[in-house]
Amino acid sequence: MPTSKRFPTAHLLNVNERFFLIDCGEGTQIQLRRLKLSFAKINRVFISHIHGDHLFGLFGLLSSFQLLGRKNELHIHGPGEIREIVLFYERYFGTEQSYRIKVHPLGYTRKMLIFEDERIEVFSFPLKHRVPTCGFLFREKNAQLNLKKEAIDRFKPGIENIHKIKQGDDLELSNGTVIANELLTLPPWKPRSYAYCSDTSFEPGLSELLQGVDLLYHEATFSKDDEDLAAKTGHSSSVQAAEIARICSARKLLIGHFSSRYKSSDVLLSEAKGIFSNTVAVNDGDVFDVERTRTENIIQE
Amino acid sequence: MPTSKRFPTAHLLNVNERFFLIDCGEGTQIQLRRLKLSFAKINRVFISHIHGDHLFGLFGLLSSFQLLGRKNELHIHGPGEIREIVLFYERYFGTEQSYRIKVHPLGYTRKMLIFEDERIEVFSFPLKHRVPTCGFLFREKNAQLNLKKEAIDRFKPGIENIHKIKQGDDLELSNGTVIANELLTLPPWKPRSYAYCSDTSFEPGLSELLQGVDLLYHEATFSKDDEDLAAKTGHSSSVQAAEIARICSARKLLIGHFSSRYKSSDVLLSEAKGIFSNTVAVNDGDVFDVERTRTENIIQE
Repeated sequence: MPTSKRFPTAHLLNVNERFFLIDCGEGTQIQLRRLKLSFAKINRVFISHIHGDHLFGLFGLLSSFQLLGRKNELHIHGPGEIREIVLFYERYFGTEQSYRIKVHPLGYTRKMLIFEDERIEVFSFPLKHRVPTCGFLFREKNAQLNLKKEAIDRFKPGIENIHKIKQGDDLELSNGTVIANELLTLPPWKPRSYAYCSDTSFEPGLSELLQGVDLLYHEATFSKDDEDLAAKTGHSSSVQAAEIARICSARKLLIGHFSSRYKSSDVLLSEAKGIFSNTVAVNDGDVFDVERTRTENIIQE
Repeated sequence: MPTSKRFPTAHLLNVNERFFLIDCGEGTQIQLRRLKLSFAKINRVFISHIHGDHLFGLFGLLSSFQLLGRKNELHIHGPGEIREIVLFYERYFGTEQSYRIKVHPLGYTRKMLIFEDERIEVFSFPLKHRVPTCGFLFREKNAQLNLKKEAIDRFKPGIENIHKIKQGDDLELSNGTVIANELLTLPPWKPRSYAYCSDTSFEPGLSELLQGVDLLYHEATFSKDDEDLAAKTGHSSSVQAAEIARICSARKLLIGHFSSRYKSSDVLLSEAKGIFSNTVAVNDGDVFDVERTRTENIIQE
């Protein structure tokens, strides 16, 4: 349940100004406005499962897109029932719909590549909840070598050569001198990744699927003391969330989806940090960067 | 559309700690929590029309009632489609529903008494919008005479006599002396009334239906300068809202439902005050008392 301080779940992932909305609890459009985030940049929505606290904001969002005169097709990845939910929406509220909604139903048996573009791949993977539920993994594709500006300014290779240098080739100058590729390029950025594990029981099988993830969001509905309740309702304790981060060798863990029974998230955070120190208990509106690192350590010139 | 400062429409009417929810825009349950208003006291919801900004909060509210273990039947008065919307809700989100929802479809041809209890009557009346829309009038029933405490303490009439005094009878004491009713009672409180005119074009026919209303809420989506847009979209300007208040001889006017095109409601308020001075431009969370007055002026003893 929402509280006076916490809206239901929604995450917005910014991949080079392309926005992916992950779950859409009631009030998501209101929070987007407060945070001055552009509606127009959202073209793809991912819904983890058919529980109200993860999708009741969809109606208002679809409706505001229409009032804003949206033309771009909107893609929704979610459980098959999303089709019927969108049909319901269109029947009663979308009669003047200015844009098309395309629904992509999820599968629940294994990890699946469900979307890719030139920059990222998105995978769904099954979680263990009371109803069919997926998590989502967003991963950058392998990047090309990055050109060293100074070297390019100095040797002025043509466009065709630049393309070859990015693939790893050396450069032969017109006087026959060969410049080694490593003098012309920096190692590529390491592909970054973000995983979203919405409502789920403790599922150590995630370790393999999410190994080495940079930023892991994992629900932590209950305290360790309420693990029986967690098991009964298909949720995790903060300790279980931290254990997943540990066995995945995640770089950083975000926990959220706290039960309204806890006045503060302090206890949950402290429990999690006992297992995985780089944990943050999220608040509405928090923003996290996934920092880029090079694939190898280099000495900057 | 909601803005970063304004949620979509919902009003909560408190009649002696019985709460009536009127429209239920997205985020209503969040605002109820922020204002520390009891969910349990809401047993009756009135939905004016089937537009998302007046009902998308219903899903979250119904869902939270369930999580809170509600047992009391919930009554929803609204357009016939509300039945299908509730069925949709129950199919996907209400499988563990702990309480019954009873839908009372509205009519749209004339003013109708749609609910009464021992204290109030509720009427629906047709408005002029793009889809079938009703306003609602809440009116206290005629109250009995109020006993003067001092006189009752002095003459000590029995319970049977007290009942008669409240109906207007004089009191005969055992020694034969008759005490005039006006020495025993105060005139009753004047029945108070509140009218809710959600989305509507200018409709002077409301004058007769709402004559003498104490507190009138009337939408004021547009400024006078945008009255062509108001007519086209089935809305009113602030001047038109004020004109309705004037011809109804309302005691006080609340305006709201401002288009997000206006950065502030100042212009709308100022326009309305030019026609009807006792106007307030509402903000989220504002609370208004409808003060009680006696049916006749009396000098307090």
